[in-house]
Amino acid sequence: MTSSRIVYLNGDFVPFAEAKVPVMDRGYLFADGIYEVSAVLGGRLVDNAAHLARLDRSLGEIGIANPHDAAGWERLQMELVRRNDLVEGLVYMQVTRGVAERDFAFPPAGTAPGVVMFTQAKTVAANPLAEKGARIITVEDLRWKRRDIKSVALLAQVLAKQQAVEAGVSEAWMVEDGAVTEGSSSTAFIITREGTVVTRPLSTALLPGITRASVLRLAAEADLRIEERLIPVEMAYEAAEAFYTSASSFVMPVIQIDGRPIGDGQPGRHTRRLRELYLDLARAG
Amino acid sequence: MTSSRIVYLNGDFVPFAEAKVPVMDRGYLFADGIYEVSAVLGGRLVDNAAHLARLDRSLGEIGIANPHDAAGWERLQMELVRRNDLVEGLVYMQVTRGVAERDFAFPPAGTAPGVVMFTQAKTVAANPLAEKGARIITVEDLRWKRRDIKSVALLAQVLAKQQAVEAGVSEAWMVEDGAVTEGSSSTAFIITREGTVVTRPLSTALLPGITRASVLRLAAEADLRIEERLIPVEMAYEAAEAFYTSASSFVMPVIQIDGRPIGDGQPGRHTRRLRELYLDLARAG
Repeated sequence: MTSSRIVYLNGDFVPFAEAKVPVMDRGYLFADGIYEVSAVLGGRLVDNAAHLARLDRSLGEIGIANPHDAAGWERLQMELVRRNDLVEGLVYMQVTRGVAERDFAFPPAGTAPGVVMFTQAKTVAANPLAEKGARIITVEDLRWKRRDIKSVALLAQVLAKQQAVEAGVSEAWMVEDGAVTEGSSSTAFIITREGTVVTRPLSTALLPGITRASVLRLAAEADLRIEERLIPVEMAYEAAEAFYTSASSFVMPVIQIDGRPIGDGQPGRHTRRLRELYLDLARAG
Repeated sequence: MTSSRIVYLNGDFVPFAEAKVPVMDRGYLFADGIYEVSAVLGGRLVDNAAHLARLDRSLGEIGIANPHDAAGWERLQMELVRRNDLVEGLVYMQVTRGVAERDFAFPPAGTAPGVVMFTQAKTVAANPLAEKGARIITVEDLRWKRRDIKSVALLAQVLAKQQAVEAGVSEAWMVEDGAVTEGSSSTAFIITREGTVVTRPLSTALLPGITRASVLRLAAEADLRIEERLIPVEMAYEAAEAFYTSASSFVMPVIQIDGRPIGDGQPGRHTRRLRELYLDLARAG
């Protein structure tokens, strides 16, 4: 939050301190908005086309017109990266249904969506946590039924992440009907003792992770067997390896779940390899 | 939205056009906040103590410190009513977890909650819709599992209300496992052919409606039989009367559900009586 930090706000690049939205913005009153986060590595956006495609899809699912095409978004992102001298970190994008007198129903046709973008400087590649591995807990999945939509209605995820923090660990995997859905801000993976990479199949129960898709592709290219299936919590406890993926954590080894060591309690061999492969991909831009 | 409209924002009464929150407000980024709405009739707050008690309870459930006690809130509400010359309408209150660099986990201890309050002028007593009765539809309940918390994570309710608007009706009752949970912004009631007032028992599946509680008390005082039980959609279709309650609609007769007339397709006798009784209560202040 330096004084020179620049935020994109509805067509303008403004100083951080001036980046404010009206209280009648539907993002503030109703969580009526969509967001995306793309990583930046070496000044370049990672997996960005897929993030922009998911942004477009999420907006469509809740009936907000996408204010920009992919090329338009990327121009704004890169301009924001440039203005903030961002080399490594994240670009955050949020689109809300705009500003209108408070009423649950959609505002009048022609109400302009609200757009906010900002950057966060962050070490995403040489992340010390990836070296030692993350400890996680499982928590009940309290979320709504359309988790395939990346909306800003994130209160359940906030409460899950806070449970993790209070337990002294890095992430919470959410569990529904005995099976892991996903992390509070990540996709859950395990690797079985037979070396199969396992993650939950896509549905409305979880977000279609962008990093998830890339890692599955890399795993296939590395000749790892892949299975998309439900992961009961007990199956996760007994895994040989575990990890989670997200735009900001890339591939994060998990060494402990609910206090139980995973494998030998160190980042797993296949997991480390997948992280390296993803980093190569990210660096290639 | 007149130029003289005044909004309360973190300790100050500001002109509407200046009522803006930082993009890093957790209400905007995470739906990490709680709200309440109290009706104003004849310049007086309706059922306000109960609304403030629920606000306190909701805040406690998600770990936000309540920035004011009930007397403090009511002083601010009445000052806002006065500054806006509000005789009839609503006072809206929102408390978020405050402004902090974006991170799912709670911000550092000591981060001040964000408080916004505004008024909306609105005819709540002599509402023409209450004369002719509301038509409604049923929709799937997509919400999260802690609907007893009045959070601003309202996207599912927005989508439900919009479905109602697109169907040309006034409200959507949300249905889970075949039974009505509640309306998108109201509590659902039916009255059986035997004259029993039926509404769903309180649980995490629905909001503990303030108007709901008052109407149940009034129904009991009027010697109506009351049953708190699940209402299957078919049971609602076959009801003698139906209505919904909320801070802004008071007691709203329902004359049609999913295109099926309820009773004789007119506001029901008991429903009209309950609305009168509630209006008496509201006017008494």
